[in-house]
Amino acid sequence: MKLGIIGLGRMGANIARRLMDAGHECVVFDANADTVATLGDDGAQTAASLDELVEALPAPRAIWLMLPAGDVTEQTVETLKGKLSSDDVLIDGGNANFKDDVRRAESLQEAGIHYIDVGVSGGVWGRERGYCLMIGGEQNVVDRLDPIFETLAPGVGDIDKTPRRETRDPRVEQGYMYCGPNGSGHFVKMVHNGIEYGMMQAFAEGFDILKSRGKEELPDNMRYDLELADIAELWRRGSVISSWLLDLTSIALAEDNDLEQYTGKVNDSGEGRWTIEAAIEEAVPANVLSAALFTRFRSRSDNTYGEKLLSAMRKQFGGHVETPPDASSK
Amino acid sequence: MKLGIIGLGRMGANIARRLMDAGHECVVFDANADTVATLGDDGAQTAASLDELVEALPAPRAIWLMLPAGDVTEQTVETLKGKLSSDDVLIDGGNANFKDDVRRAESLQEAGIHYIDVGVSGGVWGRERGYCLMIGGEQNVVDRLDPIFETLAPGVGDIDKTPRRETRDPRVEQGYMYCGPNGSGHFVKMVHNGIEYGMMQAFAEGFDILKSRGKEELPDNMRYDLELADIAELWRRGSVISSWLLDLTSIALAEDNDLEQYTGKVNDSGEGRWTIEAAIEEAVPANVLSAALFTRFRSRSDNTYGEKLLSAMRKQFGGHVETPPDASSK
Amino acid sequence: MKLGIIGLGRMGANIARRLMDAGHECVVFDANADTVATLGDDGAQTAASLDELVEALPAPRAIWLMLPAGDVTEQTVETLKGKLSSDDVLIDGGNANFKDDVRRAESLQEAGIHYIDVGVSGGVWGRERGYCLMIGGEQNVVDRLDPIFETLAPGVGDIDKTPRRETRDPRVEQGYMYCGPNGSGHFVKMVHNGIEYGMMQAFAEGFDILKSRGKEELPDNMRYDLELADIAELWRRGSVISSWLLDLTSIALAEDNDLEQYTGKVNDSGEGRWTIEAAIEEAVPANVLSAALFTRFRSRSDNTYGEKLLSAMRKQFGGHVETPPDASSK
Amino acid sequence: MKLGIIGLGRMGANIARRLMDAGHECVVFDANADTVATLGDDGAQTAASLDELVEALPAPRAIWLMLPAGDVTEQTVETLKGKLSSDDVLIDGGNANFKDDVRRAESLQEAGIHYIDVGVSGGVWGRERGYCLMIGGEQNVVDRLDPIFETLAPGVGDIDKTPRRETRDPRVEQGYMYCGPNGSGHFVKMVHNGIEYGMMQAFAEGFDILKSRGKEELPDNMRYDLELADIAELWRRGSVISSWLLDLTSIALAEDNDLEQYTGKVNDSGEGRWTIEAAIEEAVPANVLSAALFTRFRSRSDNTYGEKLLSAMRKQFGGHVETPPDASSK
Repeated sequence: MKLGIIGLGRMGANIARRLMDAGHECVVFDANADTVATLGDDGAQTAASLDELVEALPAPRAIWLMLPAGDVTEQTVETLKGKLSSDDVLIDGGNANFKDDVRRAESLQEAGIHYIDVGVSGGVWGRERGYCLMIGGEQNVVDRLDPIFETLAPGVGDIDKTPRRETRDPRVEQGYMYCGPNGSGHFVKMVHNGIEYGMMQAFAEGFDILKSRGKEELPDNMRYDLELADIAELWRRGSVISSWLLDLTSIALAEDNDLEQYTGKVNDSGEGRWTIEAAIEEAVPANVLSAALFTRFRSRSDNTYGEKLLSAMRKQFGGHVETPPDASSK
Repeated sequence: MKLGIIGLGRMGANIARRLMDAGHECVVFDANADTVATLGDDGAQTAASLDELVEALPAPRAIWLMLPAGDVTEQTVETLKGKLSSDDVLIDGGNANFKDDVRRAESLQEAGIHYIDVGVSGGVWGRERGYCLMIGGEQNVVDRLDPIFETLAPGVGDIDKTPRRETRDPRVEQGYMYCGPNGSGHFVKMVHNGIEYGMMQAFAEGFDILKSRGKEELPDNMRYDLELADIAELWRRGSVISSWLLDLTSIALAEDNDLEQYTGKVNDSGEGRWTIEAAIEEAVPANVLSAALFTRFRSRSDNTYGEKLLSAMRKQFGGHVETPPDASSK
Repeated sequence: MKLGIIGLGRMGANIARRLMDAGHECVVFDANADTVATLGDDGAQTAASLDELVEALPAPRAIWLMLPAGDVTEQTVETLKGKLSSDDVLIDGGNANFKDDVRRAESLQEAGIHYIDVGVSGGVWGRERGYCLMIGGEQNVVDRLDPIFETLAPGVGDIDKTPRRETRDPRVEQGYMYCGPNGSGHFVKMVHNGIEYGMMQAFAEGFDILKSRGKEELPDNMRYDLELADIAELWRRGSVISSWLLDLTSIALAEDNDLEQYTGKVNDSGEGRWTIEAAIEEAVPANVLSAALFTRFRSRSDNTYGEKLLSAMRKQFGGHVETPPDASSK
Repeated sequence: MKLGIIGLGRMGANIARRLMDAGHECVVFDANADTVATLGDDGAQTAASLDELVEALPAPRAIWLMLPAGDVTEQTVETLKGKLSSDDVLIDGGNANFKDDVRRAESLQEAGIHYIDVGVSGGVWGRERGYCLMIGGEQNVVDRLDPIFETLAPGVGDIDKTPRRETRDPRVEQGYMYCGPNGSGHFVKMVHNGIEYGMMQAFAEGFDILKSRGKEELPDNMRYDLELADIAELWRRGSVISSWLLDLTSIALAEDNDLEQYTGKVNDSGEGRWTIEAAIEEAVPANVLSAALFTRFRSRSDNTYGEKLLSAMRKQFGGHVETPPDASSK
């Protein structure tokens, strides 16, 4: 197939390359002319503007947006709405909020343009491992794009087969899935990231407890200096918590058991936040997923106003003056 | 009554003074001779050693320990076990773990010595407001000490009367209560402190949300610079959350809305921790009380090893390099 | 002053009565003609329609809405926008989301109509105790309505004076406060309710731990059957956690220590949810406030799908078959 | 090697079989004579009593206990202390608290008996996949038992090699690890299980949010009926959260998307609880691991006393009477 790709950051560029490797044709555009040129060297047809990109594609067109969620995506969708024709398809592979998908799909539908939302997991490993794709929109339009999705997905690989799936959609085992109407692709991806936050935080707390077992204040016969890099590696084999995140932990700890190159000031993206908002809309308890998000918030700040208020109350009712940080670090 | 008091820190000294103000006699001892002398000036009979204190009291003796929980209390109880006689009473007014009470009571019982555990709430305001007392041990021994407890308690005061309490123990309205067998006094006090942590944290989070509403990143028409000292004062009147902790918050914020004198590195005492352990023993969910405790732990440390591990995993799977603290503080 | 009041539920009717008791004139309307008639008997001027109410008020008019947040309020505001004149004031005393306030205020401003948002705390006790008022909007318009707010507020009462407030706005001590631009009144009220959820949950967990200390599985010498009604009453005196919520707990437990009349299926209103959303917008950790909300969600459902998934995973990796509820209720 | 095994439950029996398959000799005992006989049929040397088992082993003996943690293990260790000789080794492969290990090791040392604690992960899949082993005790004694550990461990398998491990202990890649002094083996296993609880709960919450997206109360264009069995399978391929727990989730959901055979009343073992206690001892925040534990507590009970107290407070301050479960289940 011939596909337009707008946004050639790490993800967009690698998606283009994986598609071209499999024989698809890509017409690419990015605000940064250098990245466009680089993709041109890799075999893509380059466009110097959105207009050029639209012209270079045969009708009905298919254009994949791989832009930062929010204003940039919004403006590009608005602009393209004026340039595309009936039955063209716009695919958003970025990290949009599913509610924006629903709104955009309804707006584009007025002009007969189709909108497909695709949640993409895979990160820097995606070009090699393939991308796990969660797809929402009109089913017949999704079917039309099947060659693209099939190429991007990881494929069956050597992962153990799950029993009793004989009568189910075989595309799922290839690593891509039609999830339902507009927004459902990004909704499923959003929850994926929410779970990711929770799993990461479970590992973070566990390794913190292991690490802190060496604290001097603990009694001699119950203090252990544990070799965390080895523990991570060990758990990859036969344990209940073996997982890709544990594989990555083992790699990182083999490099540096003390993780001294990291500040521990952890960013969060929209998906972690929207997952909590979705849980609240649905009245579903999400204690773990929210605690994972809140840990990231706290990691990025100094002592909070709220913590100072705790100190202030303690002083008022008990005359406690908090000892300085060094003295109280037990 | 004549009462021995061992441990003349802020709490012990004020307890002695409140008792003497009401006509009780106190024989006092402390490892620090100066504080003993000060209490002597205030009218107490001073003792230069545990032996002197024991000799100065008529049988059956009553001795109140007001010492740091843990080793100091443990050793003093052990020492006194060898010096006291059958039917003497040892009262621990410190912050002991209720399991230590049970063990100590059983040990002293071998020598015929009674043990009473008293949870004491009141802090620096206690001498004036009185102390709220939660008492565990043998009921007839507790009854014997009633004049002491009655004096220390706040009394009925001008607090609104709760309906339908006519047939209940009138001592409760005076501010002291016989809770049950050994350990139950400190158990009830422990849970009191657990609740205190939770309430404090509820205020801390709420005021943090108010304060952070002024953050520059928020949209202009939904950003507010709120006057927190006024909000705290306002809520004291007619709101659902009016409470002594809110009164104290209002006092602290009237002094300094920005709480700049506080580090926000918040200590925790044993009770907050033991409350969670008790909840776990009982299989009771305690999400709020544990979150309150964990916030204090986190407030005292720099970025944790666990947070660094989050950064490390993010770098591995997504190539994310966490931006430095300044840039990510949104 | 002469004030229109629309919405005569428990809150609206009592607000009208408190105003009339103080000599203000009220013109009242409600979709339910019976409640209108009842207020007429109490001295209000009644209106049979919005038009009648608008006509009965002198310009510039002041109309207080006390309606369910959401669609009813939205439609009434829209309708009144077409009936009111420049410089009239619409006051929303309901539980609106502050973002709706901002939007409504901007919309009404086009017609020169002022909008004031008032967060009202006080519940069923408000007519007697007064209402704590948090007010957002244009300051000069708020000043114009001062006689209304002053009457509704609780007044100084016999609450202890907070030191160092001499130079601050004296209205705050009366129990009403100008918080800032549109939305800020409801924002402050929203956070108040968030804190309320957290405090309630702190008490709930604490009393659960006390109650569960009587569980048969616990060792004999560390099991206590505690008198919870007495403990609640005790803590009202001299303890750190004394509060209005504790007063109410004591009243409820004096009626029935076992709370058997309650299902424990606890509803939540919008404010608790919006508080978490605000915290997320501001990147403020809110572990306690969110846990309090999630407990309410869980209280209203049977075993969740998520819990069943835990059982399913346990069966898969460990062959565990969860024992039936009766056997595992330890 | 020749090894005694006491306790032939699922784990103990499969450990014996895996050892015998590799040519080790096992002398087995269990309180249940039938299971002993079954193992005898499988090639084990059977013992009718502890004495017989001890006699059947050559000095220095090695005996593996695979018994329920707590009283049974405690008594068996005490009994064997009287029957074993200097330089014999007792290995506890059960789920003991690491503090019990420390105490037992010190007690056995008086008689010259060695004690080794082994945390064993692998569950019902262990005989086939091998067991991940975390080992604590005297290093030279652990070395002596190396042939046993090497056989039980999963081996290198076809798991991707972690870079930069060339200079590290090669046994770790085989799936067994010497962790440190007594207790450290069970400590590491305990934290493993704590992490497991957290990861499971992350999945549970995520799938709950997916499932609840079909709730009727949600707006039509933002409600999705998602195929959860397919989503679990999809995420196994190329996603960040791929893991063994996700593999098992996919298996379980392929059997029954609705999980109707499960009550969702989820048990917890000691390790999850002890992990929180360890975190508290170390002053490490563990919001996610504790929330995972508390969810299990709540899953096993009806509406709690604490929830009823919330209802009671709401009635007191707001006149709210909670609607019955059916009506409030949004």
